[in-house]
Amino acid sequence: MREFILFSRGVTSDFNINDLPGAGRMDLVARCVSTGIFLSYSLRPDVKFHVVLNGPPNPPLTITFFTNELKNVSPDERNIASHIKIAIKNSGKKNPSEPGIYVEKISFEELVRKKVEECRNSVFYLHKEGEDIKNFEIGKDFVAILGDNKGLPEKEEIFLERLGVKKISLGKIEYLSSQVVTIINYEVDRKCML
Amino acid sequence: MREFILFSRGVTSDFNINDLPGAGRMDLVARCVSTGIFLSYSLRPDVKFHVVLNGPPNPPLTITFFTNELKNVSPDERNIASHIKIAIKNSGKKNPSEPGIYVEKISFEELVRKKVEECRNSVFYLHKEGEDIKNFEIGKDFVAILGDNKGLPEKEEIFLERLGVKKISLGKIEYLSSQVVTIINYEVDRKCML
Repeated sequence: MREFILFSRGVTSDFNINDLPGAGRMDLVARCVSTGIFLSYSLRPDVKFHVVLNGPPNPPLTITFFTNELKNVSPDERNIASHIKIAIKNSGKKNPSEPGIYVEKISFEELVRKKVEECRNSVFYLHKEGEDIKNFEIGKDFVAILGDNKGLPEKEEIFLERLGVKKISLGKIEYLSSQVVTIINYEVDRKCML
Repeated sequence: MREFILFSRGVTSDFNINDLPGAGRMDLVARCVSTGIFLSYSLRPDVKFHVVLNGPPNPPLTITFFTNELKNVSPDERNIASHIKIAIKNSGKKNPSEPGIYVEKISFEELVRKKVEECRNSVFYLHKEGEDIKNFEIGKDFVAILGDNKGLPEKEEIFLERLGVKKISLGKIEYLSSQVVTIINYEVDRKCML
């Protein structure tokens, strides 16, 4: 299983589908999910993409896209965001919100702790000062943690450090979060399927 | 200069900004442009992203985003698409349509021919049966040609073949066009800046 955990400042209330940037950069969230779960004309199998929304008014809220169960999702930002909108509305009422889309009141720290307990060695987070991904052994099962456009808050960074989660970098350039997701998938494709 | 030429079936008339997939997959176009021109918090310098629109009613129409001159562009699909919408409207009337955004009645074949004349050895196109990008020498100046979700039409494929344009692949997996753009930029970053 490939898992991604995106720390986002996206809102936890209903939002305007015509203004995704104004909803705590929900455009960024949608782009990350899209590129994490899609390939050309298919969903990538065995991917869980967790979005932890930390914006107002009711943070945290974790929405998970699980590709093996997903239906009726397309790669455009508006479509992905519309499913997030529905999941926020269904929070506390219906889970899964839709097939393959789960919504839970779980915080970033709880989620990461759980993943580290399950598979300590394959959890890493993306950081410009980390070890180069080219030198890091990643198998087909991993949990990649990344921040949104503002990165991780200091508290969460310290939490990951105390937990011993490894930092990985993609070279000298700072990419968009969605580009980071694409590149991790590509690097793992290359390592595991060449 | 890094240049991308995207063959798109996007419409050449005004379109509904709330239905980008319905405008000949203008969502795909916007995602490709976005990931081609942006890095975290900045535009990538020295990039020209050419979108050749071949959809109805007035094909072809080539819209070029040139990062060294661009202003007021953000990475969300809706924003990029809104600039394309303006460029279509300005076609034949105002060029550049906006700073760094050019619109011309140039076809895919004309554009490619021009690029091949300028720099034959650094023009390539992405194809699953091409030579692996890992074995291909790409410098910091290149012209990458790619298709939309349906790939290049046969006529354009034959045209490229006759012109001797090299085919390059990204491994065994078929990626979304936008993922292809991200990966090419990443591979070149790694080759030229490691």
